[in-house]
Amino acid sequence: MSDFPSLLGGLFGAPEVDAVFTDTARLQAMLDVEAALARAQVRCAVIPPAALGAIEAAGRADLYAVPALGQATLLAGNPAIPLVKALTAQVRHTDADAARWVHWGATSQDIIDTGAVLQLREAVGLVQERLHVLCTALAVLADAERDTGLPGRTLLQQAVPVTFGLKAAGWLDALHRSQRRLQALYADTLVLQFGGAAGTLASLQARGLDVAQALGDELQLPVPALPWHTARDRVAELGSAFALLTGTLGKIATDIVLLMQSEVAEAFEPAGEGRGGSSAMPHKRNPVGCVAAIAAATRVPGLLSTLFVAMPQPHERAAGQWHAEWETVPEIVRLCAGSLAQVTVVVQGLQLDRARMRDHLDSHGGLLYAEAVAVTLAETLGKAAAHALVEQAARQALAQSRHLREVLQELPDVSAQLSSTQLAALFAPDSWRGMADTWINRVLAQR
Amino acid sequence: MSDFPSLLGGLFGAPEVDAVFTDTARLQAMLDVEAALARAQVRCAVIPPAALGAIEAAGRADLYAVPALGQATLLAGNPAIPLVKALTAQVRHTDADAARWVHWGATSQDIIDTGAVLQLREAVGLVQERLHVLCTALAVLADAERDTGLPGRTLLQQAVPVTFGLKAAGWLDALHRSQRRLQALYADTLVLQFGGAAGTLASLQARGLDVAQALGDELQLPVPALPWHTARDRVAELGSAFALLTGTLGKIATDIVLLMQSEVAEAFEPAGEGRGGSSAMPHKRNPVGCVAAIAAATRVPGLLSTLFVAMPQPHERAAGQWHAEWETVPEIVRLCAGSLAQVTVVVQGLQLDRARMRDHLDSHGGLLYAEAVAVTLAETLGKAAAHALVEQAARQALAQSRHLREVLQELPDVSAQLSSTQLAALFAPDSWRGMADTWINRVLAQR
Amino acid sequence: MSDFPSLLGGLFGAPEVDAVFTDTARLQAMLDVEAALARAQVRCAVIPPAALGAIEAAGRADLYAVPALGQATLLAGNPAIPLVKALTAQVRHTDADAARWVHWGATSQDIIDTGAVLQLREAVGLVQERLHVLCTALAVLADAERDTGLPGRTLLQQAVPVTFGLKAAGWLDALHRSQRRLQALYADTLVLQFGGAAGTLASLQARGLDVAQALGDELQLPVPALPWHTARDRVAELGSAFALLTGTLGKIATDIVLLMQSEVAEAFEPAGEGRGGSSAMPHKRNPVGCVAAIAAATRVPGLLSTLFVAMPQPHERAAGQWHAEWETVPEIVRLCAGSLAQVTVVVQGLQLDRARMRDHLDSHGGLLYAEAVAVTLAETLGKAAAHALVEQAARQALAQSRHLREVLQELPDVSAQLSSTQLAALFAPDSWRGMADTWINRVLAQR
Amino acid sequence: MSDFPSLLGGLFGAPEVDAVFTDTARLQAMLDVEAALARAQVRCAVIPPAALGAIEAAGRADLYAVPALGQATLLAGNPAIPLVKALTAQVRHTDADAARWVHWGATSQDIIDTGAVLQLREAVGLVQERLHVLCTALAVLADAERDTGLPGRTLLQQAVPVTFGLKAAGWLDALHRSQRRLQALYADTLVLQFGGAAGTLASLQARGLDVAQALGDELQLPVPALPWHTARDRVAELGSAFALLTGTLGKIATDIVLLMQSEVAEAFEPAGEGRGGSSAMPHKRNPVGCVAAIAAATRVPGLLSTLFVAMPQPHERAAGQWHAEWETVPEIVRLCAGSLAQVTVVVQGLQLDRARMRDHLDSHGGLLYAEAVAVTLAETLGKAAAHALVEQAARQALAQSRHLREVLQELPDVSAQLSSTQLAALFAPDSWRGMADTWINRVLAQR
Repeated sequence: MSDFPSLLGGLFGAPEVDAVFTDTARLQAMLDVEAALARAQVRCAVIPPAALGAIEAAGRADLYAVPALGQATLLAGNPAIPLVKALTAQVRHTDADAARWVHWGATSQDIIDTGAVLQLREAVGLVQERLHVLCTALAVLADAERDTGLPGRTLLQQAVPVTFGLKAAGWLDALHRSQRRLQALYADTLVLQFGGAAGTLASLQARGLDVAQALGDELQLPVPALPWHTARDRVAELGSAFALLTGTLGKIATDIVLLMQSEVAEAFEPAGEGRGGSSAMPHKRNPVGCVAAIAAATRVPGLLSTLFVAMPQPHERAAGQWHAEWETVPEIVRLCAGSLAQVTVVVQGLQLDRARMRDHLDSHGGLLYAEAVAVTLAETLGKAAAHALVEQAARQALAQSRHLREVLQELPDVSAQLSSTQLAALFAPDSWRGMADTWINRVLAQR
Repeated sequence: MSDFPSLLGGLFGAPEVDAVFTDTARLQAMLDVEAALARAQVRCAVIPPAALGAIEAAGRADLYAVPALGQATLLAGNPAIPLVKALTAQVRHTDADAARWVHWGATSQDIIDTGAVLQLREAVGLVQERLHVLCTALAVLADAERDTGLPGRTLLQQAVPVTFGLKAAGWLDALHRSQRRLQALYADTLVLQFGGAAGTLASLQARGLDVAQALGDELQLPVPALPWHTARDRVAELGSAFALLTGTLGKIATDIVLLMQSEVAEAFEPAGEGRGGSSAMPHKRNPVGCVAAIAAATRVPGLLSTLFVAMPQPHERAAGQWHAEWETVPEIVRLCAGSLAQVTVVVQGLQLDRARMRDHLDSHGGLLYAEAVAVTLAETLGKAAAHALVEQAARQALAQSRHLREVLQELPDVSAQLSSTQLAALFAPDSWRGMADTWINRVLAQR
Repeated sequence: MSDFPSLLGGLFGAPEVDAVFTDTARLQAMLDVEAALARAQVRCAVIPPAALGAIEAAGRADLYAVPALGQATLLAGNPAIPLVKALTAQVRHTDADAARWVHWGATSQDIIDTGAVLQLREAVGLVQERLHVLCTALAVLADAERDTGLPGRTLLQQAVPVTFGLKAAGWLDALHRSQRRLQALYADTLVLQFGGAAGTLASLQARGLDVAQALGDELQLPVPALPWHTARDRVAELGSAFALLTGTLGKIATDIVLLMQSEVAEAFEPAGEGRGGSSAMPHKRNPVGCVAAIAAATRVPGLLSTLFVAMPQPHERAAGQWHAEWETVPEIVRLCAGSLAQVTVVVQGLQLDRARMRDHLDSHGGLLYAEAVAVTLAETLGKAAAHALVEQAARQALAQSRHLREVLQELPDVSAQLSSTQLAALFAPDSWRGMADTWINRVLAQR
Repeated sequence: MSDFPSLLGGLFGAPEVDAVFTDTARLQAMLDVEAALARAQVRCAVIPPAALGAIEAAGRADLYAVPALGQATLLAGNPAIPLVKALTAQVRHTDADAARWVHWGATSQDIIDTGAVLQLREAVGLVQERLHVLCTALAVLADAERDTGLPGRTLLQQAVPVTFGLKAAGWLDALHRSQRRLQALYADTLVLQFGGAAGTLASLQARGLDVAQALGDELQLPVPALPWHTARDRVAELGSAFALLTGTLGKIATDIVLLMQSEVAEAFEPAGEGRGGSSAMPHKRNPVGCVAAIAAATRVPGLLSTLFVAMPQPHERAAGQWHAEWETVPEIVRLCAGSLAQVTVVVQGLQLDRARMRDHLDSHGGLLYAEAVAVTLAETLGKAAAHALVEQAARQALAQSRHLREVLQELPDVSAQLSSTQLAALFAPDSWRGMADTWINRVLAQR
């Protein structure tokens, strides 16, 4: 990613996470690996202690020019080769001897992959922090709105009552799983890459494992069983973790956009100066954050598929498939982080029209309580007969624009079973919540 | 999937796993859920014990005709609705009272999702068994071939020596991670779906959670915090686990296809009557198993992306996105299982030409040992100077078709550092294995 | 695809097009190619005329058993090798001499690809016919509903008035492009594949082109400049054509599902016995056809990406990438045809609630006419000032639940420009249609 | 895309085409649309001629700050809203009256889409120019290397002889189709978007079509039958055209990378200072251009799938799906253009080792001529018997490391048919080219 702010970047990314993936940050991460390698090799007595100072001093990204390195990358085929050349030259300026020990025993992919892991670890941490904020907001919402009834909607049709608290709890429960998935990445996904030319660390001879472990220590990264230059399941798994989060955020955004429709108007994104206007229509209040989150959920699956397509990498180093990961992984993380930022703003400022929700529960002539009646009648009539009876009454109510309760009351099969008071009770807004509160409690208890 | 054998099915699937996903198996799984639901509701005193026998007796898939149910599914929009009708009719034949209690409190998606989970749990178990067989074969191979040297190849160019045991260990290590991922699915991915019309189980009133837990007991499925009708991260995560395995199998197959090339000819798929011939060329011995595995690795990423695209499911029930999962998930599992079967046959019967591997180590005039020389010279000359010196010698050797050792020996900068014996030792096949054995041991210790 | 009806098949496919892709149809298409090849070679005097009868007589798919061929395909790696063996054996039964000339000069891929092209040509024809039916229905709808006003909705917010005829015209216009794309496939996409072992037809020596042209004649397929065994852009292009149609059908289905929401209720899928019910809720009338079309539009993009991933096929025959096309291409066509069938049923039986549409035009206190007022005021006040003025009035109208017209009338800046009659005219349902009719006419003129 | 050079950008993009998609270029394109709109409306007497000068003068991207517009875009939800505000303010500086007429009658999407079409048209033109250069180079290669024999390889196994000219002709033929696809975009894909708030141009009342046509004239863009705010097949079709080209370039790159393998070594990317080295191995000469092209072919399919996923856009303006196109379309074009640049450099500097190709034709003991022998023998023995005979001889030759010719000569069934001179002629390098030259000529004639 470019070091510079961009026109659409704000809409689709999040500043703190974008900052982790700028070109300069990528350079710095690679330089950090080179410096840590030198420290590790000094600890293992593989290179002389005297070399360390100059290598560390040269390890600042601002000493190097992105455009020139970019030009050389075009020829070299990867950014580590020109960076190692530039770093060696920089070290040589101050200490010609030290320059010999730059990048000792490593291969380009060690530096690029481990550098990327450092960036990704930082991004995972940032996303975890922000996800915690969203989860907290949703937990508050789930608890606060547990008595806010609204129609549950299946296939976009009003079905039976639910509560807004339950909706929020469902979103939160899925995010809890994303929290666990992100946390799990630290153990065996965000690990050291260090194998040398073809994975054997042969150039370090007997000291390969020692240096790998010292380098893992320096960078606080687990040392895997063996290098993973062409075993890329870790990369695709990390991509999946972010894509799963992006998908869940897309689900939340979809629900809110649907609730915000003019004809539904039960929930709204926060308003604000300059937020969600239209260049043509002065009255419009458009969803903005949800739209960006839906865009992210539309884009990430294709990007993720690239990581899986790239998995079969030949022999000991890929010829194009690895390279396909370089811009794709940061893009997935960026879109996820951007979506998270947008959804958090929306949830934190979410405006509910509770009266309208309640109106909707009764707006279709009591049809949302059809299941309640059918279940009650089924106890005596059997499920099929009760279902058929209520279905017929529902059709009649719709055709005659009458309330379902009235139509039912006139049916002998119904009045034989249920007094008019009993029937009326079935149509009470709070009578049909089932486990809604229980589910909310179970989700809140999981945190 | 169809109940019947197909023309290409054998190539891309695996019989035991295909059997889990036939139409009949899908029906049976749904019927098993209905029967378990009846048992659970008897246990919870929600339905009368007398109803159970008839419901269980009607729970055999062979009582129902797939084509007729298929026709009704086209109208109903999902297969549970006609199945519940047919099941109710079947129960009514023997016990009209029992027929009332069929599918009590459940919604179509409860039956379809939980049925699918039962099928997937069975498939996961089968894949785990078969994956264990492949891992065992690879562990043997990694150990047995730890002294079998061959060129490591980066960007498809010979680079430095590795061992075949190390290649096998690298494959195995990635498969170990897939084993852990599959095992992890049992905890919170392969879980009960039971929420009723909109997730509240309202039709069971206060008994919703009790019935859910009893149903979980009956089916030996964990009961999640709340229903997940439109929280589909579990589905996409399961798809990812299979896609990661398919990708790793594709990597193994890619390596073997490349090793099997006429010009490399270091490893071969097992031969056999009718295996890998050509309709035009009598001498051809084509890879077959690896080709099917590569086809699977090419197909699964797109299928997986569908599951992520389908994640943002609206409100309490999707209008198309859930439906997009129905054929896609089994297809991913089928392709993964087929690839696993093919790669297992290939690995179990893999034929190595160890002599040819050894020849290749020396075939390019000693260039594979260039790194060894460079590293040794760098200790005194510094990395950059040594690298440049050896690069120049390598070019000269290539241009003059001479052995790198000879060219180096004539360079004063080299002979000043290394005696001819020392130089020769650097070109010994076994001198440049580095951590290969250590890595193998670390992988084998993980099992 | 299996020869047999399946549980979900009816929902996602279309019977006539499914029939084109059964295993038996695949066999028959390959046998048709073999028979046509024999005829072409007799015409070119490459094989003896006497051989023809037996080869043609053996060219009936019902002479061969799919399961046995499937078993052999697993070993052979493709279905043409066992089919050619079985065909040769079948011919030998009646004419041992003729058996020599079976499959003469061809390679497996010639038979498989050309057979697939024959199937696809038939499928394209069927889809064209059915698409014509849908286009006719939409043309009628566009014309008939040109005066049916309803709110245009942007970002799911009511915006300004449109007409239902215009919506239908927009759908139709995109389908016209799909018609042109399907028609274009005949010229250079649905072409003969005939190249022999590695594309040179060397086994036919000097007669290669003659036989290719005669074979093209026999099958009425264009003969391309050269064989395309590993140049697969034609396959991906054909997939794109069907995916574009599937995407447009998904757009139509999305619009209708949204219009069919309980709170919008402006348009409905046709009702019918057993259509769109719910197993839990007796009153539900679910969308079914649109749901299947949305599922198809969710699934096809991932399948299509597979065809593009598979494009880089090595050298003269792929090792897995070609094989990835075999089930993927028919699946795309099947899903497209199924979606087309579903959307056609929906459009042909579409029920509109025109009164409700009209009500919606005025339901938000006249806000849909805000643009009309702003544009009129802008002529004197300037766009920015008019926009700001109307935006403020709209906010006030919303906050006070008053009609925008009333609020505006009280503003001096408005009353100075517009009499109350002029203002009222701006809020007339038909006053703000712009080019709606013109666009409809332009689309209808294109047919 | 950022305005600034980046670290990896050079590897994956092409400078001239990248320049078309910078943030500044995007702004300029949108400003060009606004200026053209003003001119068109002056021509149609919709806005006063006096307004034009100030609007045109303000239409320079360098008057606006990308970071500030980016910030506002985050709130507004699209970049046109803040740009129109900034443009209006800029115009007001010089001519308050003119400011009223900025963006008259248009909606954000008109400006964003038409601006994007202008950028894409420029990019298509640039890609066409560069593709012409590659096609010319390939035409020269196809003609020049028509006598350069090498093994045709199927499933990566040597099969029968082909010529390098034929390989190049096959690549060229596919590129010709891409040329035609790019050219076809001008007619009905790269078209004007102009519909106003909901596609009716109602704010222009009776003048909508006139202004649209004048605007199309100004921008030299076709005016479609009606606006296409939510009919996005054109976008996905354009993406497909670039993806098809990227896939074909990936096929070329795959072939070359495989030919460049150490063990094949028949063709090489051009060498050059700093090109294709290794940070660890001094002797390595890595493919670089082909690797970037393979990376592009790995990435583009997923990006393309996003455009198809985004097709079902609701009603008159999307809520996220359109937004998913904004960065995706330029990324596809950029990767395609980068791949084209890389492959062109590779093809223009391609180094062939013709001697090695010839050696390979005979390297496997004459097995590449097995088909030639089988075909010749089949004329008398029949295809099956001849195939079996040669297959057996091939196995024996392989097992005994003898030349196939020798083994065959000893078989009575062979010597009865073929004299030793006839047999030897079958193994001549040039005897088995079939239609290779004819195909080349057909491709070259197509230009």
